Amino acid sequence: MASRARGTLPFDVADRRLAAAAWGRLTEPGDPAAGVLRHHLGDSEALDWLLHLEAREAIGGLPAPLADVASARAVQWPRAVARWLPRLATLDIRRELEVLHRLGGRLVIPEDEHWPQQLDDLGVTAPAALWVRGELTTGPGIALVGARAATSYGEHLAARFAHDLAEEGFVVISGGAYGIDAAAHRGALAAGGRTWALLAGGVDRLYPAGNSSLLSSIIDSGAVISEAPCGTAPMRSRFLQRNRLIAALAEATVVVEAAWRSGAINTASHAGELLRPLGAVPGPVTSMASAGCHRLLRENNAVCVTDVAEIRELVPGGAPAPQQHELDPGLLDGLDPLARQVLDALPARSSAAVPSLVRSSGLSSIEVRAALGRLELAGRAARDGAGWCRLRD
Amino acid sequence: MASRARGTLPFDVADRRLAAAAWGRLTEPGDPAAGVLRHHLGDSEALDWLLHLEAREAIGGLPAPLADVASARAVQWPRAVARWLPRLATLDIRRELEVLHRLGGRLVIPEDEHWPQQLDDLGVTAPAALWVRGELTTGPGIALVGARAATSYGEHLAARFAHDLAEEGFVVISGGAYGIDAAAHRGALAAGGRTWALLAGGVDRLYPAGNSSLLSSIIDSGAVISEAPCGTAPMRSRFLQRNRLIAALAEATVVVEAAWRSGAINTASHAGELLRPLGAVPGPVTSMASAGCHRLLRENNAVCVTDVAEIRELVPGGAPAPQQHELDPGLLDGLDPLARQVLDALPARSSAAVPSLVRSSGLSSIEVRAALGRLELAGRAARDGAGWCRLRD
Repeated sequence: MASRARGTLPFDVADRRLAAAAWGRLTEPGDPAAGVLRHHLGDSEALDWLLHLEAREAIGGLPAPLADVASARAVQWPRAVARWLPRLATLDIRRELEVLHRLGGRLVIPEDEHWPQQLDDLGVTAPAALWVRGELTTGPGIALVGARAATSYGEHLAARFAHDLAEEGFVVISGGAYGIDAAAHRGALAAGGRTWALLAGGVDRLYPAGNSSLLSSIIDSGAVISEAPCGTAPMRSRFLQRNRLIAALAEATVVVEAAWRSGAINTASHAGELLRPLGAVPGPVTSMASAGCHRLLRENNAVCVTDVAEIRELVPGGAPAPQQHELDPGLLDGLDPLARQVLDALPARSSAAVPSLVRSSGLSSIEVRAALGRLELAGRAARDGAGWCRLRD
Repeated sequence: MASRARGTLPFDVADRRLAAAAWGRLTEPGDPAAGVLRHHLGDSEALDWLLHLEAREAIGGLPAPLADVASARAVQWPRAVARWLPRLATLDIRRELEVLHRLGGRLVIPEDEHWPQQLDDLGVTAPAALWVRGELTTGPGIALVGARAATSYGEHLAARFAHDLAEEGFVVISGGAYGIDAAAHRGALAAGGRTWALLAGGVDRLYPAGNSSLLSSIIDSGAVISEAPCGTAPMRSRFLQRNRLIAALAEATVVVEAAWRSGAINTASHAGELLRPLGAVPGPVTSMASAGCHRLLRENNAVCVTDVAEIRELVPGGAPAPQQHELDPGLLDGLDPLARQVLDALPARSSAAVPSLVRSSGLSSIEVRAALGRLELAGRAARDGAGWCRLRD
């Protein structure tokens, strides 16, 4: 608190939008201590409390206004406050917001109409605000995530799934990265559908640079979103926290292709913690790029999904997939087992009489005669003199 | 019972080996009525009962000797007997056994030392005898099954898995068919290991013909096995019953590659009914040849297995697979999260002082200093004048 009088900020702390935005600057994403404080006091009041805090007061433990809050007792307050104070000293969130507005973006806070309510499932780690370029229209979303080091197999599937899901009206949610993420965004755009890219850094910086034109297209027909204010650099810990937003925003998450250690596995575990349905797409076991998906399947953390219909089935209340495969009469070509057994007993290139069929099939004479009748009706067998012959197999 | 006096057979019914072999001729594989009868009376006595049966007596229902047996009440006895009698008329099992012995094979019945005890789990559908060419040495077996219409991916995996499992002393069990089965047998043979081929027809006919030289090699260093007497033709219903033997003989079954309707799925359901562990190997979702495996995974009927270590883990009490992959510190390169966060905050091509790192990392000054200490120890950061710099990433 060096550069200005203690207890003041250069903007109006009572302004709820400015206060919400400020918390995104003061804390790292997903800071549960800030979440507890904001949840019980409100963004402006929490900021005001922090501004008027005598540093010594915090060292003692629980902030006085939270004395009766059970969840607040678990927080190490001196440590939390010690993280926020250095940033408070230089805080003027109007600067970051100005950058956002200049880029045509806007801040979305929980009171706003388009705030995605599903983020509330994050509890005390829910973001205070979203920095958005594009449109946050509502509608069910499905996250398609995966490794940057993707194979053409994975990218092909991500693009195809995204295309079909977007066409059906789902918002395709991903992380804007190279590989699977980019393929998913592209697939959705190709379908003329909506897609959201969640960035780990500020939305003023379209990161990674190689995807900047893709991210620009996403802004035009979907949204590029971050909980971090403009100017925030994408750092690894922020990517991991960004993944929780992807998982929370989507009704279901699908890991399309991910190696054993991919960050997509982290998104998957966020989905698991949020009790969101999780799917994993298998691939060749000879491809290490699918090892993470196989691990999710093996440990029973994800459902095996192989096509869009199966992905759709993940979504609670999502239309059940049209049955693409008939069920098993297949094994017996639609014939009942006895008829099949008699058909198999019919010689391929001659005819056979009933007593001979009785012995070769192991069925009784009555069963053989009944089965022959059914085979005749099905056009699979015909009378041939005193015996029977096969018609086609 | 046309060609000879009622109540007689041309061989000694009291001979337990002949009686057991005869039941394989009288019934189709897996006939539960015969199983109930044999289980409660013994093979010879059951045959004797059938021989002395007045056909009219059976029509009435329960065979008199089984009047008190609950499981016998569920059997439709007239129907069962009507299936057996036509074959009884021409039965002389010594002929089939002569064929077997001429081929160097032998009959194995439950009293024999090498009878695979695990077949008893089949209950009333357990076979009365096995017709064996080769050696039925004991040892844990793993079934590798799959489609005839296999891809090179599936065949490659089947051969590799079989090779490594055989090398570790497992008997590789399969069905002698083209595709996955053949690849599995070949892999085991290539390792100089043991492999069993279960045939649907008699072992006198090495079916399919295209695999006859492979099956001959299996006889030399493993066994070709059937519950059907010599002379029995391979028919579709017999293939389905043969699959239950594969599942029962193996301590675990793995479906390597199978389409939606493959017979291997039938083997898989037998394994499930027997509560034997079942594994399925995933493949590209673009390959219909893996659709059956994916279905088993999706419906949670099988465990996802991708290598030999994971297959070995299926076997109860099997040595746990050596850990091939480190667990996750990976996500953060082995650094604790705070150190990682500070490392990310260190500029790539210059140095930074602690206050600046405090602001950019969002950590407290104490945490940043502690993390820098750990990074220094790990050789990842170094003091640089008044600040700190990164050493390598």
